[in-house]
Amino acid sequence: MKAMSDKPLVSIVMGSDSDLPIMTETARMLEKLQVPYEMEISSAHRSPARTAAYARKAAGRGIKAIVAGAGGAFHLAGVIAAETTLPVIAVPIANSSLGGMDALLAAVQMPGGVPVGVMAIGKAGAVNAGIFCAQIIATADAALSGRLAKYKEELAQAVEEKSTRLKAELLANANDIME
Amino acid sequence: MKAMSDKPLVSIVMGSDSDLPIMTETARMLEKLQVPYEMEISSAHRSPARTAAYARKAAGRGIKAIVAGAGGAFHLAGVIAAETTLPVIAVPIANSSLGGMDALLAAVQMPGGVPVGVMAIGKAGAVNAGIFCAQIIATADAALSGRLAKYKEELAQAVEEKSTRLKAELLANANDIME
Amino acid sequence: MKAMSDKPLVSIVMGSDSDLPIMTETARMLEKLQVPYEMEISSAHRSPARTAAYARKAAGRGIKAIVAGAGGAFHLAGVIAAETTLPVIAVPIANSSLGGMDALLAAVQMPGGVPVGVMAIGKAGAVNAGIFCAQIIATADAALSGRLAKYKEELAQAVEEKSTRLKAELLANANDIME
Amino acid sequence: MKAMSDKPLVSIVMGSDSDLPIMTETARMLEKLQVPYEMEISSAHRSPARTAAYARKAAGRGIKAIVAGAGGAFHLAGVIAAETTLPVIAVPIANSSLGGMDALLAAVQMPGGVPVGVMAIGKAGAVNAGIFCAQIIATADAALSGRLAKYKEELAQAVEEKSTRLKAELLANANDIME
Amino acid sequence: MKAMSDKPLVSIVMGSDSDLPIMTETARMLEKLQVPYEMEISSAHRSPARTAAYARKAAGRGIKAIVAGAGGAFHLAGVIAAETTLPVIAVPIANSSLGGMDALLAAVQMPGGVPVGVMAIGKAGAVNAGIFCAQIIATADAALSGRLAKYKEELAQAVEEKSTRLKAELLANANDIME
Amino acid sequence: MKAMSDKPLVSIVMGSDSDLPIMTETARMLEKLQVPYEMEISSAHRSPARTAAYARKAAGRGIKAIVAGAGGAFHLAGVIAAETTLPVIAVPIANSSLGGMDALLAAVQMPGGVPVGVMAIGKAGAVNAGIFCAQIIATADAALSGRLAKYKEELAQAVEEKSTRLKAELLANANDIME
Amino acid sequence: MKAMSDKPLVSIVMGSDSDLPIMTETARMLEKLQVPYEMEISSAHRSPARTAAYARKAAGRGIKAIVAGAGGAFHLAGVIAAETTLPVIAVPIANSSLGGMDALLAAVQMPGGVPVGVMAIGKAGAVNAGIFCAQIIATADAALSGRLAKYKEELAQAVEEKSTRLKAELLANANDIME
Amino acid sequence: MKAMSDKPLVSIVMGSDSDLPIMTETARMLEKLQVPYEMEISSAHRSPARTAAYARKAAGRGIKAIVAGAGGAFHLAGVIAAETTLPVIAVPIANSSLGGMDALLAAVQMPGGVPVGVMAIGKAGAVNAGIFCAQIIATADAALSGRLAKYKEELAQAVEEKSTRLKAELLANANDIME
Repeated sequence: MKAMSDKPLVSIVMGSDSDLPIMTETARMLEKLQVPYEMEISSAHRSPARTAAYARKAAGRGIKAIVAGAGGAFHLAGVIAAETTLPVIAVPIANSSLGGMDALLAAVQMPGGVPVGVMAIGKAGAVNAGIFCAQIIATADAALSGRLAKYKEELAQAVEEKSTRLKAELLANANDIME
Repeated sequence: MKAMSDKPLVSIVMGSDSDLPIMTETARMLEKLQVPYEMEISSAHRSPARTAAYARKAAGRGIKAIVAGAGGAFHLAGVIAAETTLPVIAVPIANSSLGGMDALLAAVQMPGGVPVGVMAIGKAGAVNAGIFCAQIIATADAALSGRLAKYKEELAQAVEEKSTRLKAELLANANDIME
Repeated sequence: MKAMSDKPLVSIVMGSDSDLPIMTETARMLEKLQVPYEMEISSAHRSPARTAAYARKAAGRGIKAIVAGAGGAFHLAGVIAAETTLPVIAVPIANSSLGGMDALLAAVQMPGGVPVGVMAIGKAGAVNAGIFCAQIIATADAALSGRLAKYKEELAQAVEEKSTRLKAELLANANDIME
Repeated sequence: MKAMSDKPLVSIVMGSDSDLPIMTETARMLEKLQVPYEMEISSAHRSPARTAAYARKAAGRGIKAIVAGAGGAFHLAGVIAAETTLPVIAVPIANSSLGGMDALLAAVQMPGGVPVGVMAIGKAGAVNAGIFCAQIIATADAALSGRLAKYKEELAQAVEEKSTRLKAELLANANDIME
Repeated sequence: MKAMSDKPLVSIVMGSDSDLPIMTETARMLEKLQVPYEMEISSAHRSPARTAAYARKAAGRGIKAIVAGAGGAFHLAGVIAAETTLPVIAVPIANSSLGGMDALLAAVQMPGGVPVGVMAIGKAGAVNAGIFCAQIIATADAALSGRLAKYKEELAQAVEEKSTRLKAELLANANDIME
Repeated sequence: MKAMSDKPLVSIVMGSDSDLPIMTETARMLEKLQVPYEMEISSAHRSPARTAAYARKAAGRGIKAIVAGAGGAFHLAGVIAAETTLPVIAVPIANSSLGGMDALLAAVQMPGGVPVGVMAIGKAGAVNAGIFCAQIIATADAALSGRLAKYKEELAQAVEEKSTRLKAELLANANDIME
Repeated sequence: MKAMSDKPLVSIVMGSDSDLPIMTETARMLEKLQVPYEMEISSAHRSPARTAAYARKAAGRGIKAIVAGAGGAFHLAGVIAAETTLPVIAVPIANSSLGGMDALLAAVQMPGGVPVGVMAIGKAGAVNAGIFCAQIIATADAALSGRLAKYKEELAQAVEEKSTRLKAELLANANDIME
Repeated sequence: MKAMSDKPLVSIVMGSDSDLPIMTETARMLEKLQVPYEMEISSAHRSPARTAAYARKAAGRGIKAIVAGAGGAFHLAGVIAAETTLPVIAVPIANSSLGGMDALLAAVQMPGGVPVGVMAIGKAGAVNAGIFCAQIIATADAALSGRLAKYKEELAQAVEEKSTRLKAELLANANDIME
């Protein structure tokens, strides 16, 4: 059974299909953690009514968390957060000449009353949005919590392996690296 | 007769009453240029439906331009622009520790398709928003265009007067200033 | 019965007691939403072992979300996130000459694998951290979800009231404001 | 009949021919919305008298709005605004190593008295400058207002179509994306 | 005889009388170095024709260098440089919420062909503008060159004296400072 | 016996006596850790020969590390590092309108070949410069290394005490804080 | 006869040969304006004594202005200015990941007493450094002043020609551009 | 015998193997200066226990200084400094869309009590980290101090050689460069 399902727990919304290469990372991570999700394109500025309606109905359809990704004047996360009491997670995307600083500030500086939880700019943020949603759902799902713990161990183990490989390479290529 | 009227041509919207000291500057300038206006508080995040409805109905009520002022994750101008084809003018307000850079970027970096015309951060921007709206309306109102031309002359004259006063003071206080 | 309790669901951790005036806002909001919490001072840099141990044990003690607040090289949220699979929420505090940009970037740019959900810099962020934690817990707590919906309505109503008051004042003081 | 005409309503001015690839986007959009325009190269710094004369005469020739695009120390919009009471719209261009932050700040921080309405940096801003000019002219042109409304609907519909396409692709390629 | 004279060699221009407290520092330094100067208020945006005429005539009146000071969208130096082949020196003033970064970038990022020599933001920059003008004039004035050399020695001597005083204080108050 | 001595191991150099309130923090910390030091005022720009000579002679006089503090175009650390092979530590000071970002970048972006170790902007950085120098000297001084370990324990203990005090206050004032 | 001569009036100093592609622009412009110059590589950090000696001797050798170009922690201009009363012009070079903001701030924020006149980052700044030096020398050289005036006319004429060409192209290719 | 040895004096730690191309520069420089070192991969966020343990044991194994390199939310240096009294040197790496400003601020703004000495962003910083560690160790190692002095001479000589080569090329290619 696929995580992309009719009973999604996480909604991944992006402002444009040009954001898909980044936001796919959120989907991949949710797949890995076996959290069912859906993906949607809806713009805060070009399709505001659609976006508002989507946000208002999300909780009723069983969604537990919404991830929004966009660049520039990144209002999408805030606009969704205005219409729901679900946790909204923002992934700022660096699609302008300002390196994503615009999207970051537009997402993070929300006024008191309407929170958005902001991730790192770009792919790392999209990956983490998937994990963060899983962490939210895992507060009431022990099995998912276990998968998260296992993933965390894998991260530590990957570091261990990289360290081992580095040392082996350093020994093998000592002359190359240290000439 | 007052510019604040039942048949306003300009709508001044702000996200919170804490923005009033800045946005009053827009009202003052519209008063000066005899452009009828109205003022409204409506939040992109705390009262999204209200804001969207207000923006959608503005043109039908005879409004010709909408000024939006807010700080932080300043989405209000973009959210209004999403719902109207009227020109939307943004006044970023420096109410966070980032000096208004957050509000500026959140307002100005709008995606193609949904423009917002952004003024300077703070009071100068609020003053200019009033003039800019008058300039928009004056494209089809010769009398207002004349008042704008007169205001422009006053600006130049004020510089002239300041220059004259400076020179007089420099002469009078030469010893003080140049010791 | 007080929200500050022996069975807290949210942990509010700050790097120093100088952060208390900000982080108290998180506590106030959790009080308002009737979410039991605890407060702790623990530094990523001055008491690392204590911080790590605290983070590692939080889930086992029934904590559902951890809020971390600090300024400058704000590592506390990331260091906690490294030790737990609970959702970690960061409140950057502007306690240096850089207006909190340092704390924001140090908190938000986490690498893939270890998410932190970042709120706005300062008080607004601290308020929102409280709401965001409640939103997380409410994904499995219908009563809390109802309180959040009610709070959201209050926000919209407060805007409505401010708008009404503004208009009344404008009418009353028309001459003062518009001379 | 072409929008580029002897009776232009919008003037597009750029500081150098190197800005043409960006500013052509303004022209394209005005074409689409059937707003007659003209294009001009004139520099605030290299041909100041020419620029000032051009700005002073624009209103008399029937121009309703002026778009200025340049990079770096972007003074062109301000210099034009100093010489006319027409609305002046600025498109900051990212042609230096600072990603357009220089052009943005040089354009937007105008002093009280002389407004410039600033669009996003680069192509999105140039597209929006065209729409914004049309919005200005449409305040007294119902037919153009209708074309703007239709364009707005197209934007929303394009989102709808992208969403449909995304979902179809996700279904078709589910295995690829979600392995 | 005063440096403020009928035969000034340096012109100090500022955009507004609010810039006077800063720009007076340039005057003071020119006084000290016995370089005759004049002060003028003229705005790039509010009195453009006046500013252009002033810049065009400066060389003919015997002016050797022009200092321009302003804040925000600081176009004054560039606008003057566009109209003269005299060296133009800019003093960015921090009169907005952006700490003078706006004025600095608007002044410094001039396009090839029209140079402006930019000093530090604020008072230090205004002081240095006076010295820099003296350095320019001193390239053909040996007496002034001598006064500049003497001033440079005074700077070094002042450091020496401060160092001596510090050490004396440290000895005297050792217990206070080092408890 | 005082740390301020005739046989200093650390030299604290500042560009101006206005930097003394910050740089005194370095002295205090060295006092605390019983590392003998000296303080000097010498400017990279106003007394370059003096500064260069001072830097060149430092190692010969037994100095083990040099701390330089200044603001704005903070060249002092780099200029000293150019003249010595001793470790040079920089404390950027926020004495301009840019919050110390200028001093930070001017100090930290040294070219390959001439390192400077940069501390935080302002007081925290000055405190840490003292500790860092002690850490350098402690690499060959076991007793100092012990004092550093003890200081580190004190830091952790202070956190512990603050935590205890916070919890006591929260209990005592529960009603005040949580009403 | 070449401008690169035994009797140079302008010295172009750069921190490294990697800066040559930028600083050659200064040389080209001086060639064009027939101002004799010399080029030198000398580092503030890697060859401080050489740089200081060079700066101290420049005036005695007949140099009238010194241009310094470097990137990163750009101290070269300030270090030279510390040793001479000649006007020093800085060209910040964008050779780090910060787009030249580091070099700009390190050059421009000089303390009162030791001015540096800063040009734009990169090639435009290097071109302008050449013109600016010519402007300085032209304050006592009428022939050079005439060449500068002629160059200024050429700039204006080049704009005129670009404008003519643009309009011709627009007419010719109207269908391509405006489809 | 190689510097990479069983008795390393310097530890080079990086957060990920993707940082290796930068951090190898530190190794190269230590090789050149004959300072034995080791390299390690350990992440502040993915392997916190491993990193803490490594830092705690470093001094006991004879390590004299630790270099940490990472990008984004660069906590690694701070986290290591929290666990050791050895000097910790940070190399911020520009691996995000913010050009390393995130890593720089996250590393440099450490709170009072826990210093980290920060180098330039990227390769120059990594090179300098090697030199800086050597400078630390050389405070108690006269032979190494001699090698550092020799390296410093080489730097100055390399400038001399580049200068000679530039002048030769300028003479040879005068026509090419100066046409």
